[in-house]
Amino acid sequence: MTHRRAGSIDEAWKLRARAVIPGGMYGHKSVAHLPAGFPQFFAGASGAILRDVDGREYIDMMCSWGPIILGHQDAAVDAAVRHQLSVGDCLDGPQPVMVELAEAMTSRVCHADWAMFAKNGTDVTTLAVRVAREATGRREVITATGSYHGIGSWSLPSGSAGLTDLDSALTRRCVYNDVASLRAVADSTTDLAAIVVTPFRHDVRRDLEMVDLDFAREARAICDQRGAVLVLDDIRCGLRVDPRGSWEPIGIRPDLSTWSKAIGNGHPLAALLGSQALETAATRVTATGSFWLAAAPMAAALETWRRFDDPAVTERLHACGNRLADGLRSQATAHGVDATVSGAPAIPYLSFADDATFRVADAWSVAALDRGVYTHPTHNWFVGLQHTEEVIDMVLERTDGAFAEVAKIVDELREAG
Amino acid sequence: MTHRRAGSIDEAWKLRARAVIPGGMYGHKSVAHLPAGFPQFFAGASGAILRDVDGREYIDMMCSWGPIILGHQDAAVDAAVRHQLSVGDCLDGPQPVMVELAEAMTSRVCHADWAMFAKNGTDVTTLAVRVAREATGRREVITATGSYHGIGSWSLPSGSAGLTDLDSALTRRCVYNDVASLRAVADSTTDLAAIVVTPFRHDVRRDLEMVDLDFAREARAICDQRGAVLVLDDIRCGLRVDPRGSWEPIGIRPDLSTWSKAIGNGHPLAALLGSQALETAATRVTATGSFWLAAAPMAAALETWRRFDDPAVTERLHACGNRLADGLRSQATAHGVDATVSGAPAIPYLSFADDATFRVADAWSVAALDRGVYTHPTHNWFVGLQHTEEVIDMVLERTDGAFAEVAKIVDELREAG
Repeated sequence: MTHRRAGSIDEAWKLRARAVIPGGMYGHKSVAHLPAGFPQFFAGASGAILRDVDGREYIDMMCSWGPIILGHQDAAVDAAVRHQLSVGDCLDGPQPVMVELAEAMTSRVCHADWAMFAKNGTDVTTLAVRVAREATGRREVITATGSYHGIGSWSLPSGSAGLTDLDSALTRRCVYNDVASLRAVADSTTDLAAIVVTPFRHDVRRDLEMVDLDFAREARAICDQRGAVLVLDDIRCGLRVDPRGSWEPIGIRPDLSTWSKAIGNGHPLAALLGSQALETAATRVTATGSFWLAAAPMAAALETWRRFDDPAVTERLHACGNRLADGLRSQATAHGVDATVSGAPAIPYLSFADDATFRVADAWSVAALDRGVYTHPTHNWFVGLQHTEEVIDMVLERTDGAFAEVAKIVDELREAG
Repeated sequence: MTHRRAGSIDEAWKLRARAVIPGGMYGHKSVAHLPAGFPQFFAGASGAILRDVDGREYIDMMCSWGPIILGHQDAAVDAAVRHQLSVGDCLDGPQPVMVELAEAMTSRVCHADWAMFAKNGTDVTTLAVRVAREATGRREVITATGSYHGIGSWSLPSGSAGLTDLDSALTRRCVYNDVASLRAVADSTTDLAAIVVTPFRHDVRRDLEMVDLDFAREARAICDQRGAVLVLDDIRCGLRVDPRGSWEPIGIRPDLSTWSKAIGNGHPLAALLGSQALETAATRVTATGSFWLAAAPMAAALETWRRFDDPAVTERLHACGNRLADGLRSQATAHGVDATVSGAPAIPYLSFADDATFRVADAWSVAALDRGVYTHPTHNWFVGLQHTEEVIDMVLERTDGAFAEVAKIVDELREAG
């Protein structure tokens, strides 16, 4: 492993942070969850490049954990934001851009007739469940074990810190892509309000798994038979799979879909889209937050969505993602490292055989980091339009060295794991 | 009542909105909840002035429902935001400004040793409850009936649309300012995790009520005796009462406090502040959202808090609020209208005697709107530093006409109500 310079500025900020921020930094954004060498504090970003406080630059393959899809500081999006800020952002009520964005999203996302806006993914998955409960008069929700739908009380795994036994008492779990398991859970209740699913299985710390058409069809059929609500949680996949909705390519339309992350290219926004039949229920739930109607992130989203009107844009995004995945697979083979790239083209995940404790993944991610590629060892990465062919080739040039480095120590790491 | 011009552009946007937004507009920001004449869509704002899509200008006494405290588009705050946007906003992890803001807030708010950041008030009130549950290993939370703590499942009134019977099953209600009621509820449980209170009683549709010192002392004493957590929900009052925390003037310190709205002068941010004893529990709860570490709103907050370092600023804010309240009271008396101004200087509420159905309040708010003052008939208003003496005097010049108009019809309105 190459010698890394001490991150002295990063260390200084970590020291200051420890005095005023729980644990120095909390949650999964804490470098305590990453192998040594990852920086905690960042100084800026532009296009595909991320810069840490010590001035080191990386090609950013995490895209701020999803929100960046056109590149950091996209000129047109940021110009729209600056213009909107100069006119008015957080006012006493909505601005016309809210209507324009609702029109833009409902005209593009096939199942959607209406839109509501919020700030967090959690806001809209929780609103979706409430709309479903209000519309059906029933209470239970089925999700898949391991699927992430935000930090709402109903969705966090039971036993999560600070949650009570009642919080997810009405949430039932099935196995993603297991039709029999979904059917069995559905058959065990007469109180079904909704099925909430991600477009494919993108749980952390495991290979991603594309959706089985039979599973998606069964979810739709159960909801149709029971008058329950099918919620597609498109927060992570949204715009990265298909701007018409991530299940449009397989022909399954949800009743509600939830969006956030990339829809404003990094500007804070979330959206709940719904079908006509659920409009009345949507007007009844309490949907409010101090900044939910702010116009600047909506202006960002309007520009971001506009960019996806040309189908060639999505094709280019997928082509670059595939170029990356193919390149990584070839490099692994060439270096004799047993690795898997799973997921969708723009949402890839790299894993290694016999690596239950992630020692190989950790070592690879540090080797990539040392060469100027910022990835994550146990979470999927994100591809954006800033990752042009040229950028992907630059990434691959660097990851080749990472595979070479890991190949030398992979047996040793596995034994240690 | 003066004749109002038809809001033709507003009507056009409402028509478009009806096609793509539930109910045309949902929740309390819908003009369906306001008397006829209030505009639904806004075009911009600057300083104390709010402009609707038909080009009508109002002196804004709602401050975007709280977030605006230095005036719309404050030059220094917006410059800080623009600078931060040009450096980096939503990155793969925190930026140094997060540490600087945590330092700024914990050094100013007396009880606070650490800070966590989020987007919505609801995010941090819900995190506060989870930290309290995690720290105590207990489950129940006491709040006051009618107090608003956001739209978390635990805090919305039971029976709210889309909520289940389990959602607030562990939330117990007392009567605000009623010591016996608080004690009785506390005595009825051995499972008390937290008491969550607002700095004073600022429920909608009723006169505001300053906190009774005995009530605040009892809340603190119960938490001390039981090892429960006292949470002060300073989201609405934060910075408008005292930048050291809204209960600092009465000498009662909470264990956790929740902040949002005005802390970034309209830029989307919320904060949970806590004492040392709760730091470990804070690191354990799942606290994450895609935009929670974004730096631009933190830069806005850093500048906003800096402005309150001079105690003369808070004095000026309160003086202008008092000037408004005194002026309104004098005008009511002069016009023979039985009206009450309650609340804190920067959080006033105007109500009328024998006005259970708010017909007088509605008429007054429309009369004020017609004269270019934007208020709300059933919710408190907000005063900010943009409301200088000169602006307040301009407001009072206009409200005098509103009182004159209402005085003529007050008996008639009461009979109709």
